[in-house]
Amino acid sequence: MASVYLNKKRKKRLEAGHPWVFKGEIARIEGDPNPGDIVTVHAANGMFLAKGYFNPRSMIQVRVMTYNQEEKIDQAYFVRRIQEAWDYRKRMLHDTGGCRLVYGEADFLPGLVVDKFGDTLVVQILALGMEVRKQEIISALLEVVQPKAIYERSDVGVRELEGLEQTTGLLHGELDETIVIQENGLKMIVDVVGGQKTGYFFDQQENRAAIKDYVKTGVDGQPGASVLECFSHTGSFTVHAAAFGAKQITCLDISEHAIDTAIRNVEINGMEDDADFEFVVADAFEQLREWEREGRKWDTVILDPPAFAKSKHAIEGAMRGYKEINLRGMKLVKERGFLITASCSYHMHPDLFLETIAEAAIDAKKILRLVEFRTAGRDHPKIHGMDENNYLKFAVFEVRSRK
Amino acid sequence: MASVYLNKKRKKRLEAGHPWVFKGEIARIEGDPNPGDIVTVHAANGMFLAKGYFNPRSMIQVRVMTYNQEEKIDQAYFVRRIQEAWDYRKRMLHDTGGCRLVYGEADFLPGLVVDKFGDTLVVQILALGMEVRKQEIISALLEVVQPKAIYERSDVGVRELEGLEQTTGLLHGELDETIVIQENGLKMIVDVVGGQKTGYFFDQQENRAAIKDYVKTGVDGQPGASVLECFSHTGSFTVHAAAFGAKQITCLDISEHAIDTAIRNVEINGMEDDADFEFVVADAFEQLREWEREGRKWDTVILDPPAFAKSKHAIEGAMRGYKEINLRGMKLVKERGFLITASCSYHMHPDLFLETIAEAAIDAKKILRLVEFRTAGRDHPKIHGMDENNYLKFAVFEVRSRK
Repeated sequence: MASVYLNKKRKKRLEAGHPWVFKGEIARIEGDPNPGDIVTVHAANGMFLAKGYFNPRSMIQVRVMTYNQEEKIDQAYFVRRIQEAWDYRKRMLHDTGGCRLVYGEADFLPGLVVDKFGDTLVVQILALGMEVRKQEIISALLEVVQPKAIYERSDVGVRELEGLEQTTGLLHGELDETIVIQENGLKMIVDVVGGQKTGYFFDQQENRAAIKDYVKTGVDGQPGASVLECFSHTGSFTVHAAAFGAKQITCLDISEHAIDTAIRNVEINGMEDDADFEFVVADAFEQLREWEREGRKWDTVILDPPAFAKSKHAIEGAMRGYKEINLRGMKLVKERGFLITASCSYHMHPDLFLETIAEAAIDAKKILRLVEFRTAGRDHPKIHGMDENNYLKFAVFEVRSRK
Repeated sequence: MASVYLNKKRKKRLEAGHPWVFKGEIARIEGDPNPGDIVTVHAANGMFLAKGYFNPRSMIQVRVMTYNQEEKIDQAYFVRRIQEAWDYRKRMLHDTGGCRLVYGEADFLPGLVVDKFGDTLVVQILALGMEVRKQEIISALLEVVQPKAIYERSDVGVRELEGLEQTTGLLHGELDETIVIQENGLKMIVDVVGGQKTGYFFDQQENRAAIKDYVKTGVDGQPGASVLECFSHTGSFTVHAAAFGAKQITCLDISEHAIDTAIRNVEINGMEDDADFEFVVADAFEQLREWEREGRKWDTVILDPPAFAKSKHAIEGAMRGYKEINLRGMKLVKERGFLITASCSYHMHPDLFLETIAEAAIDAKKILRLVEFRTAGRDHPKIHGMDENNYLKFAVFEVRSRK
């Protein structure tokens, strides 16, 4: 096994649990490892630090698989790790029917994501070291979770940084034509083949349950808020709002396909008559401006936009985007109603996100009270010391005029 | 009414909802206001910004009562504001029997804190402008909430910064000999006369409910964790842990009186036989070291220390304290158990708190996974732009050896 020796001057990232070794941190490599091979990682003084897989094409040259020198990276390793990840979900989640089963680095399986949709698993392989071990991974998943089907959704750009092509397809069993998961007791249609990412966003699952107190009554204290969900995708917040007693719900997305699915989600939950639903296919930035002109207001406005900042360089434009959409959003909230606002851009750090909303509030002449701040749910644990895990921000503000 | 004009160069704090005007921000005062009088606050160009009460002895010379030029600060004002605060609690809390009813600046009543213990209110007056309006406040509380008793606990050092003496005493009605509140369905004895602050810490009320998933099973997946609560005060986490199914609970505080109350709390909830309780009166720093030597471990360790940093200048010592106690605490957690750790020092900002724990983890050779991060409950809303409101950190980590 080849050995990677790190520079003397380096941040003690591995010691803090951050499992990446960057190209610039490597002093020398002893041996001639092939791409994907397991290597040992050592401090400058020779002390063993970790074992991981090597990829000379990637900026992240080693991703750590274990801090234990004795541990072999074999089939049994994957069974152990996946069993640990599954045990953790069973301990932490009230319902494991639909959840993120493996969250890459945070489950000590760097570059591997597995989402569980009932008895279907969707796998995303993000790095070469995992790609070359795909068979061990599939076998381990079959052994631990016994799924009916495993589908691969490795159609993500970051694979190219690893020298890998994008790929999708069935890895095991047979896919159901329509997959319907249970989330917080509600039915949600999931399109694992054509949907975004792996088909569904589990990271907001606990946050969707958390909107209950913000939609069950209006600002007048009467049962049933009016709710606007923007960037609704397949309407998951809309369905939750209806279940929690909202009496009027406007569901907005730019994609007709997404809104069609949102309508079907309301239907399969049998809640068509539980609220006054309004489905709108439009660009949120334009539509919110239009509603402001019309003087429309809601008790609760939910903003769950896609990542505006996909890279560090896009951050300025993203800040403008977040400021603008939050400004528009808070203007549509009734006095003492709630703005529920999320960001899933990792580069938009929590403090920056909150500052951006504060700036929007100044311009909108609003005073905001932060009522609750949340992150991704417990099936997305965060290695402490690995900021990349901590990408999702979810804030609930009470909105008042400054007067 | 006197008028306060601000410097041209100033941070737009008021516009961002932060209701304080510092001495150094004032360009000139027109008129001759008495201490405690209401003044208007204007930008350098004369534009009206806010109305608030004046105290020339304080660094905070004006605290804003309203951003509305027309609003009078009279008896009706206090009734309106307290009614708003009460309505907000009724909307947000599942049980309003015990809660913070008025949270000063965050409820647009700067310098006034009111805690509700069943039908007893405890009032804390922190600033001169509120002191001179004490009768209006009492009358308004009687009108809105109809308490049986109002007790004052203005025995806090910050009053001296306002030129006020510390004071305590009954303001209305008669105190029950023993006050027992309901919290998350559990009984808790509260000593409003002799207890810390107003007698009880409501800010952790929702967090106490949130420990359920971390104490109901042990790391072996079996029902009932073993739990260590350090800095237990009157054992509120201990009582919750028992209610949630913990099978062994060690409750540690340096105060014998606090531990006596913790034992009584277990008794009045009739849970003496629900778990194997161990009550220890000792210094946490020493006792945790001792337990480490003995090789004792728990499934879940809870650290809820008093504020180590009471001022900006004390921050370095406080960081050492937080690092030390978290280091000791995480070493007593079984593999894959939980460390639940809080800090109520405002000066220990969230990022700094999390970094300090990360440093402790490096020294302890542990990898931490952040499972949940919380702040004070919803009866402690936070004016967005007023960091002082955001003092409570409450983090849940899964603890693993780095191996």
